Amino acid sequence: MQNPEILSFRNVNLHDGFWARRYILNKNISLESVRQQFERTARFDALRFNYLKNGRHIHYYYDSDAAKWIEAVSYLIEKDRPSMAENEAFIDELVDCMKRAQRDDGYLNSYFQQIAPDEIFRNRECHELYCAGHLIEAAVAYAKATGKRKFLHIMEKYCDYICRVFIEEKSAAFVTPGHEEIELALIKLYRFTHRKKYLEMAEFFLKNRGVWAKELMNEENTFCKQDDCDIFNLHKAVGHCVRALYLYCGIADLALEREDITLRQNLQKVFEDIVGHKMYITGGVGSSHRGECFTAEYDLPNHTAYSESCASIAMILFALRMRKLERNAKYGHVIERIMYNSLLSSCSLDGKSFFYVNPLEIALEEYGRESCIPKDSAEWLPIKQRKEVFDCSCCPPNLNRFFAEIGSVIAVCEEDALFVEQYVSSDLTTAFGSVSIREQYALDGCVDIFSENYGKDRLAVRIPEWSRSLDCVLNGEKVLPECKEGYAYFTVGKNFSLSLNFHIAPVFVSANPNVRANVGRVALTYGPVVYCLEGVENGTRLNRISVSPSAAKEAKMILAFHGLYSVEMEGFIDKEQDLLYFPARASEKEGKKLTFIPYFAFANRGESDMLVWVRRA
Amino acid sequence: MQNPEILSFRNVNLHDGFWARRYILNKNISLESVRQQFERTARFDALRFNYLKNGRHIHYYYDSDAAKWIEAVSYLIEKDRPSMAENEAFIDELVDCMKRAQRDDGYLNSYFQQIAPDEIFRNRECHELYCAGHLIEAAVAYAKATGKRKFLHIMEKYCDYICRVFIEEKSAAFVTPGHEEIELALIKLYRFTHRKKYLEMAEFFLKNRGVWAKELMNEENTFCKQDDCDIFNLHKAVGHCVRALYLYCGIADLALEREDITLRQNLQKVFEDIVGHKMYITGGVGSSHRGECFTAEYDLPNHTAYSESCASIAMILFALRMRKLERNAKYGHVIERIMYNSLLSSCSLDGKSFFYVNPLEIALEEYGRESCIPKDSAEWLPIKQRKEVFDCSCCPPNLNRFFAEIGSVIAVCEEDALFVEQYVSSDLTTAFGSVSIREQYALDGCVDIFSENYGKDRLAVRIPEWSRSLDCVLNGEKVLPECKEGYAYFTVGKNFSLSLNFHIAPVFVSANPNVRANVGRVALTYGPVVYCLEGVENGTRLNRISVSPSAAKEAKMILAFHGLYSVEMEGFIDKEQDLLYFPARASEKEGKKLTFIPYFAFANRGESDMLVWVRRA
Repeated sequence: MQNPEILSFRNVNLHDGFWARRYILNKNISLESVRQQFERTARFDALRFNYLKNGRHIHYYYDSDAAKWIEAVSYLIEKDRPSMAENEAFIDELVDCMKRAQRDDGYLNSYFQQIAPDEIFRNRECHELYCAGHLIEAAVAYAKATGKRKFLHIMEKYCDYICRVFIEEKSAAFVTPGHEEIELALIKLYRFTHRKKYLEMAEFFLKNRGVWAKELMNEENTFCKQDDCDIFNLHKAVGHCVRALYLYCGIADLALEREDITLRQNLQKVFEDIVGHKMYITGGVGSSHRGECFTAEYDLPNHTAYSESCASIAMILFALRMRKLERNAKYGHVIERIMYNSLLSSCSLDGKSFFYVNPLEIALEEYGRESCIPKDSAEWLPIKQRKEVFDCSCCPPNLNRFFAEIGSVIAVCEEDALFVEQYVSSDLTTAFGSVSIREQYALDGCVDIFSENYGKDRLAVRIPEWSRSLDCVLNGEKVLPECKEGYAYFTVGKNFSLSLNFHIAPVFVSANPNVRANVGRVALTYGPVVYCLEGVENGTRLNRISVSPSAAKEAKMILAFHGLYSVEMEGFIDKEQDLLYFPARASEKEGKKLTFIPYFAFANRGESDMLVWVRRA
Repeated sequence: MQNPEILSFRNVNLHDGFWARRYILNKNISLESVRQQFERTARFDALRFNYLKNGRHIHYYYDSDAAKWIEAVSYLIEKDRPSMAENEAFIDELVDCMKRAQRDDGYLNSYFQQIAPDEIFRNRECHELYCAGHLIEAAVAYAKATGKRKFLHIMEKYCDYICRVFIEEKSAAFVTPGHEEIELALIKLYRFTHRKKYLEMAEFFLKNRGVWAKELMNEENTFCKQDDCDIFNLHKAVGHCVRALYLYCGIADLALEREDITLRQNLQKVFEDIVGHKMYITGGVGSSHRGECFTAEYDLPNHTAYSESCASIAMILFALRMRKLERNAKYGHVIERIMYNSLLSSCSLDGKSFFYVNPLEIALEEYGRESCIPKDSAEWLPIKQRKEVFDCSCCPPNLNRFFAEIGSVIAVCEEDALFVEQYVSSDLTTAFGSVSIREQYALDGCVDIFSENYGKDRLAVRIPEWSRSLDCVLNGEKVLPECKEGYAYFTVGKNFSLSLNFHIAPVFVSANPNVRANVGRVALTYGPVVYCLEGVENGTRLNRISVSPSAAKEAKMILAFHGLYSVEMEGFIDKEQDLLYFPARASEKEGKKLTFIPYFAFANRGESDMLVWVRRA
């Protein structure tokens, strides 16, 4: 084994626990919710190519929405085919429709074929190759899950056409896609089919990025679509987050296939740029709805945060690939941060509705200002409640597919050891034998890992960045592990049982003082979980509240509606005032009992104020 | 004497001091700077009606720009005609051009006559009546100053035409102007000519406001132009600030003329709404560039503040009118707050350049984010440096005319006493004899008022809201005045000398905790002057700085480049950090010497960070 290998969800059975419940919620509720909404909004009709018959609105990104849902079903088929029988039949029908609709030359896009045939490969902005990418991913997943190859053959034929138009004949009006995605999809297709052509196509799109466009694009838009820089000179995360992160995934895949050190080092810098300057404490990325962008260093506004759900998923995909390129726990740290916070917040607790944007503050009074501003120029503010579907509904099916393959984040097999990356109750089937994990990690900070047939003498576990002391009991005896690159290494036998206690406790966190939005503020964390104040318990205008970081020591932990602890402690609230301005007094605050809930659980009890970064008293 | 009478600038001679220097700067520098820029940008060409000859760009608000400059010159002519001889001749030429260009039916508008004759009185959005209003004000001022009536007759003829089209024939496409101004101008014209028709015209426009438009306008735009509410039900300040405040001025004038109690009471509520919920500590109003609007209560963001210079002037005009409707010092408080802060900041210290928007924070790092966002959707941020002229350059000539008649803010004559409203070194000629004021108010908080021929036995002076103790010495003896409605009342003889000491000191001020932008922050004030930190002395990223309100007690006052004190004191700065997030420590700050300068002086030494509301340590 040369490269570290991410253990696939195929080799993971989730065991009852926090994440298994989310997996089942996605499988039983979210998947069906998205299917119904997509049927209602003609997403599947798009792939049925019956726009002309039904005359319903089709958008140019509908293929990708449907594709992600198909991909999700495919992963679920792999784990439990009978439960997905109806969905499998449903997909087979869609595939038949696509087969009939595919042009003889191989082209396949529901929007362009039905609505704008004269614009095929003329408009870089219309997500044509992005849709192709998601269809490719879906086709690979479906072939793997079912053994049926019809969908895969459709997409291979389409890829051949894309290759002809973009690479051989160069007859398309653009060279690199406006929205990246096809790059990583083509490498996935290459890895499944072993046809080198697909790797070369990915390489073509990746190596032309920022090269071709510099001459053709007007300067103003180069950032948004990563046209400002070629991949061999890339050091910063720039532009539209989802596009950027899918691009970085593609580069990572290429770096791995080509063993390219420059690309790997560039991605390490990009990753550090994100984690060191551009990531919300929730793991979300994207500081502005304008361009849905990474912006400047330390620009992390809370109530106008973007933190798109798709960007959280894309960031996990990027971090997983980085883990393959470098043995370091920091990639797992980021995945954990995202999973417990910005990813979970993307979906309601009942599994039916979704956030596209995940703000870190809801100040209801801000929304009041809109009544005083002409509506056509009102301040942009995120929605306050999750929705079942969006006009641009990329996020819900992306969540469907992520939760369906969530087992893929748990472990990495390296030459010398199994690396446990995420603490998720599960049974793993690895190259080194079967290993089990049991945890109530987000409640007690403890994990048990055990095996009866482990085939190596080393086991590595990621030490969470929030853990300030670690107790390890191996086969009933306290041990002191060797620690390196954020991992604890244990020498184990064939039959072992390891108990880890990371000493979880409520802790207030500060942000770098360069983060203007968070100066003088602290955020409550409890292990991997970021907490927030919500109006339901704490009243309106939450910025009147302040808290001393030391209050966390006296906190009361209460098992609550969201399945984890809520945290109660003493804080303060600024006294009411009549005047708009008045001479500052020694104390303007009084005591107030505060209740924090996990960030991911906000907006599950109606519209409410919400605040992550609370003023430091 | 029935109503309180604002003492006109005509009866005021400024004496050397802080405000006289600003008056002279305006007269000698700003007026000429604006004239040159307006010549360069075809503003005067507009009134020369030579667009067709020169083919230069004319905008539909150019008449109003030129009119305000003419009004400014007129006021200066009244005080010192010889110095304005060249400008007077210049205006006479413009008047001749207008006379030749005026249509036989009386219509006069440079834009519509030359560019869009078919659109005359068809488009409510194009400031036609707003331009007419400013031309009326200019014509009245010019007639008063010079005795020449040609301009006045042009405007009277135009008013007759407006009356015919809007009131008699009702042939215009709208009933009330899109941008208010003509209402107060018509009442000014009425008061000068005593022709009741103009008062009735004003009344027509005022009483139809919010009545006519409700049926015709689409609902989305009703707020911006005060079409949401008729004037008899008006209780809140809503919409575009300058439009709203000019409207409120018109209503106040009507309330005074008609002795209408409902209108007066409504305006009192509107005034309280502004001062209690919607005014920056600098006196600026307008919380959003979107719609240039009043927004929701307590919505006072700092770095995206609008606080338009014209709105500061309009707010003073409104407060002056309110003072005529009610004897209360609160109107003078607001005028003082505006004059020393948002008004003064509108003009550079050298008198040559101007702010349209007056933010309360400049965070240079915020501007960096624009490099990462597509330019066509970049975050709106105010400019960092004053400019000599704007495309929409309403503010500079408005400042010209305000400074030219600045003497009008100083005193009010009531039946029983002279009321000194603003402390400005000057010699007043009042109905009760001559009264002199000498002060270094913003330096030492002291004022001397004296007379040798005062004809009443009472004198009232406004007690500034920042004064926490007052020492009064009358004719050499300490006295305790009666205090009522914010005024101190003194019994004086014909010959008196009164010394007031308001005990000025540096004081940190808090904002109402409902103001989200300012929670946990304080602003330094010194008497009437609001202070700020600027990058020049205090470095970048000023939000890292914090200060204890009690540090003001140990402050060092230093006479500085802006003519007032700079204030030095001990504060703190958050320590530099490597990580983006880290566990909060007991102390994350270290000591730092801070230098505050008056807010109005910011951005006079190149681009720099700036912060009014500093974190409380």
